[in-house]
Amino acid sequence: MSTTPYPLLQTINDPADLRQLSRTDLKALATELRAFVLDSVSRTGGHLSSNLGTVELTIALHYVFQTPHDRLVWDVGHQTYPHKILTGRRDRMGTLRQWGGISGFPQRAESPYDTFGTAHSSTSISAALGMALAARRKGEDRHAVAIIGDGAMTAGMAFEALNNAGVADANLLVVLNDNDMSISPPVGALNRYLAQLMSGQFYAAAKNVGKTVLKPVPPLLELAKRFEQQAKGMVVPATLFEKFGFNYIGPIDGHDLDSLIPTLENIKGLKGPQFLHVVTKKGQGYKLAEADPVAYHGPGKFDPSVGLTKPATPPKPTFTQVFGQWLCDMAAQDERLVGITPAMREGSGMVEFERRFPDRYYDVGIAEQHAVTFAGGLACEGVKPVVAIYSTFLQRAYDQLIHDVALQNLPVVFALDRAGLVGADGATHAGAYDIAYVRCIPNMSMACPADERECRQLLSTAFAQNHPVAVRYPRGSGVGVEPLPGLEGLPFGKGEVRRTAGPTQAGRPRIAILAFGTLLYPAMAAGEALDATVANMRWAKPLDTELLQALAQDHDAFVTVEEGCVMGGAGSAVTEALHAAGVVRPVLQLGLPDAFIEHGDPAKLLAMQGLDAAGIERSMRERFLQAARA
Amino acid sequence: MSTTPYPLLQTINDPADLRQLSRTDLKALATELRAFVLDSVSRTGGHLSSNLGTVELTIALHYVFQTPHDRLVWDVGHQTYPHKILTGRRDRMGTLRQWGGISGFPQRAESPYDTFGTAHSSTSISAALGMALAARRKGEDRHAVAIIGDGAMTAGMAFEALNNAGVADANLLVVLNDNDMSISPPVGALNRYLAQLMSGQFYAAAKNVGKTVLKPVPPLLELAKRFEQQAKGMVVPATLFEKFGFNYIGPIDGHDLDSLIPTLENIKGLKGPQFLHVVTKKGQGYKLAEADPVAYHGPGKFDPSVGLTKPATPPKPTFTQVFGQWLCDMAAQDERLVGITPAMREGSGMVEFERRFPDRYYDVGIAEQHAVTFAGGLACEGVKPVVAIYSTFLQRAYDQLIHDVALQNLPVVFALDRAGLVGADGATHAGAYDIAYVRCIPNMSMACPADERECRQLLSTAFAQNHPVAVRYPRGSGVGVEPLPGLEGLPFGKGEVRRTAGPTQAGRPRIAILAFGTLLYPAMAAGEALDATVANMRWAKPLDTELLQALAQDHDAFVTVEEGCVMGGAGSAVTEALHAAGVVRPVLQLGLPDAFIEHGDPAKLLAMQGLDAAGIERSMRERFLQAARA
Repeated sequence: MSTTPYPLLQTINDPADLRQLSRTDLKALATELRAFVLDSVSRTGGHLSSNLGTVELTIALHYVFQTPHDRLVWDVGHQTYPHKILTGRRDRMGTLRQWGGISGFPQRAESPYDTFGTAHSSTSISAALGMALAARRKGEDRHAVAIIGDGAMTAGMAFEALNNAGVADANLLVVLNDNDMSISPPVGALNRYLAQLMSGQFYAAAKNVGKTVLKPVPPLLELAKRFEQQAKGMVVPATLFEKFGFNYIGPIDGHDLDSLIPTLENIKGLKGPQFLHVVTKKGQGYKLAEADPVAYHGPGKFDPSVGLTKPATPPKPTFTQVFGQWLCDMAAQDERLVGITPAMREGSGMVEFERRFPDRYYDVGIAEQHAVTFAGGLACEGVKPVVAIYSTFLQRAYDQLIHDVALQNLPVVFALDRAGLVGADGATHAGAYDIAYVRCIPNMSMACPADERECRQLLSTAFAQNHPVAVRYPRGSGVGVEPLPGLEGLPFGKGEVRRTAGPTQAGRPRIAILAFGTLLYPAMAAGEALDATVANMRWAKPLDTELLQALAQDHDAFVTVEEGCVMGGAGSAVTEALHAAGVVRPVLQLGLPDAFIEHGDPAKLLAMQGLDAAGIERSMRERFLQAARA
Repeated sequence: MSTTPYPLLQTINDPADLRQLSRTDLKALATELRAFVLDSVSRTGGHLSSNLGTVELTIALHYVFQTPHDRLVWDVGHQTYPHKILTGRRDRMGTLRQWGGISGFPQRAESPYDTFGTAHSSTSISAALGMALAARRKGEDRHAVAIIGDGAMTAGMAFEALNNAGVADANLLVVLNDNDMSISPPVGALNRYLAQLMSGQFYAAAKNVGKTVLKPVPPLLELAKRFEQQAKGMVVPATLFEKFGFNYIGPIDGHDLDSLIPTLENIKGLKGPQFLHVVTKKGQGYKLAEADPVAYHGPGKFDPSVGLTKPATPPKPTFTQVFGQWLCDMAAQDERLVGITPAMREGSGMVEFERRFPDRYYDVGIAEQHAVTFAGGLACEGVKPVVAIYSTFLQRAYDQLIHDVALQNLPVVFALDRAGLVGADGATHAGAYDIAYVRCIPNMSMACPADERECRQLLSTAFAQNHPVAVRYPRGSGVGVEPLPGLEGLPFGKGEVRRTAGPTQAGRPRIAILAFGTLLYPAMAAGEALDATVANMRWAKPLDTELLQALAQDHDAFVTVEEGCVMGGAGSAVTEALHAAGVVRPVLQLGLPDAFIEHGDPAKLLAMQGLDAAGIERSMRERFLQAARA
């Protein structure tokens, strides 16, 4: 009848439309939705496997609950494309993760259906509990639902929330979306336990519960009762989650609407904290993603009929790859080295390290706090841990960094990937604050390599120290300076002059640009254009105060450049040092502003913040050279 | 025979001495040790209840394990006085928590028996796991033991470590010291579960296990087997901890050496992660502390025969009390207010609030991460949460502050107690970094009241905002400016001039001191002495740039004063603002140095850092006035 490939989906502009459909139509809708997700992500890039896995669950939740009056909180949030498509954002999916387009995560500003912004994992139960208790306080009849993956359940924060919710007697539903895989493969005791729950006959029997109780349809209360008895009897006498005060239901098949919808409808009538265990498959319905959900976790654009292909010319190695190579090389040279990742084997470039050094590789799950203190314990015993962690996720272990590592001055290396702006992932993932929040900690050092070669060298320098050192580097690749094969480091705490300005000209100040990190290169271009001295500072802490003093001798003004927040950042380290030395000079501090910066193309975002060569030059002209030109 | 009151204890200068004693002597030693702890703490002040509770456990652990070769990691660490006394520090207990004296917590620098510095809770399992796996890597035959209280078990970090340890197959022993009370009463599902485990016949029967299996003594292996069967059979078929991959043993009586020692000896022979559930009583053996363990948690000096007494003249109200009063008053006026504490009801001054508004009081347990995101969820729904949290503990929720509250610009008030130096608790508890780590976050504001009156006013200002605001105030009392009874706030983001310098004198600069927080008062004294202008800045963020610009008009130099780290702190906010406005002036930044500062008397510590009136005056003279005097 219709010529569009999505005849049903195109009629759904709001979950209210969805609630008019028959069960048969809902199943057809799921098929269309899955095809739409695949088509859409293949055009924009984005998260795929997780979204193919939540198609039916999303339909069922919006069908059963009166969204947006009832609150859905999606943990991590990269599985919310079906949710976005069904809540009025279908036509905007082509703008996904682009500047001015919709976010790859839920955002309160984007839609009333996005009740809580997520992106970092394991926050959903806390937030949904807050919503549930707020509803109770206000006398509002409202459901709050947290949908959380098994990977995210390993983070302590989820446990803190479960522990609190189990006694709060709130009308809270936690849906465990058990797909047996976070971004890296599952680790830890909880995952092993979940595997037990869904193994063998329990799950096989439970799979058909929905169908059994559905027809013939008994009155609701009886149905609920029967269901509860059956589900409980079939599974285990008392699950872990029941010990936390939740009523445990499941596991059920998360791709079967005939299980999901009646189960959720029954749960809706129950009081107190409920825990529904749903089993889904990442990549469901797209064979290539089912076969390799890791590869299809967050692909770029691709042809769905072909799948991911290797680019004809290999791209420049990323900083992540430079780190991964260094880790293997250093491990081969120094057997004290061990590598730790909080569930980010692929993202942090540790696949090869795990393959070559399996007994020196620790994936602790999504557990940044534990990762850092565990590293501290290892370091106490003469082992040398390298903790690979995204800048934004080190925020999760800030106290452990201070209290367990820095205070005891333990030699732990922190490899901070994704420092600065991160592009498509947006504000939630920006590594904008690490210089500020790390450098204020006593005993900490922090290196900011300008390119790939320096990244490898400064990692070696960091590893050679007998105290904690963080090395921060951005997402993606740099200018492409090839790393040297050896493992020699650069001098600790020392920068270098890369370009020296000509002699002072009448009426204009002689300027020194102090660059921290990869923005050295645009700073060099600006320095060329304006004949300024350019120093590659390399270390945000300790600051090379000798170099600074030397430059202060024959320069009239400074410009600091960093891909990090200006407030408290490396530029402020410079002004602190100048003031402490009694040197009074104008300083122009260039870096990220005091604002959250949304998703978009990384290069464009930097340019918008005036952090490309043209922007640096422009800011310098405006500040120091306008009078000279006038 | 001996005239000393501690005839056995005085012979124990090392745990090796302890291991020579008979069981009978060990019991006598416990009695002496308990008396020594009571006597010692009554003279120095410090933690009491928790240390009276760990006397037998400490003896048993050092008796059974070959410390320091085997590693004991004491969670939180305020229960380690018996450990310190038995490991060569008996004679130094009189210096406890004083400058140059021994710490109230384990410190690696203090003793080889202090294997890991603790003070913040819930780090011990992570650290001990690190040590256990390091031993395995190095082929060392070594036990690692974490001793953790039930309160500390509610923090997510402990769960992350359990989850990881359960599958790591390490020779790790976790001793759960279940005393049914963290600093506030226990909360949460886990505590309820532990109460079930030790309720009724299970615990009653288990209590005597040690005695039963001890005599007549069968061969060790058989004993172990019997014990395991008995203990398991008696308790529950599969405990929560077994689901995490641990072998669960207990609960046993933690004050009965005849249970503790054989049980630990058996466990020592078992492989893989072990979990021993020990039940102790806080304050054990001192009737007054048993009856009121909260009051005797951390008393000052007192007469043990009399107990704690109320001071004849009531002391000045503390900032904590000012906050507690404000919270009640604002709650009475605005029913949207709810109060949240992560297990710090007493410390944060919320006892009266809980009494008056029990349904608006949320103690979430030691769970700072959850506390902050839970507040975010509440704030989404129009409830107005006030999170009372020590400055040092907000470090535990840094990511949640950024990602869940600030990014969504949710109106949550953070009442940051113990900002700045904290005295006897030392470096682990110092709230030295909050200005730096909070002000770099977009959307955050931060107030620094100068005295009690302003504290109340600025809390009201914070509560009136529609975005997140932190109010930081120090431990103890301030200068004693009485709060006004009303709930009017002060202008948002505005400071005030408290003192204006006379006209410029030849040869010396006209100086403006910019004070942030309670150091306003010593700054005023220095300002008087040197005829400087003094501004009470009140807000670290937003900075009152109008006031700053106005002062820049007619002052030649600035001095910034804050009880927080200089690096990235409020002084750097001033230099950033001056540089951004193109105003070039010398700035002397006074605050805490880039070093961890140990325990000691707060006033003396501040003076040592040059942050009393004399120190501020001295620094100003050295920097700005020496040439003038010469």
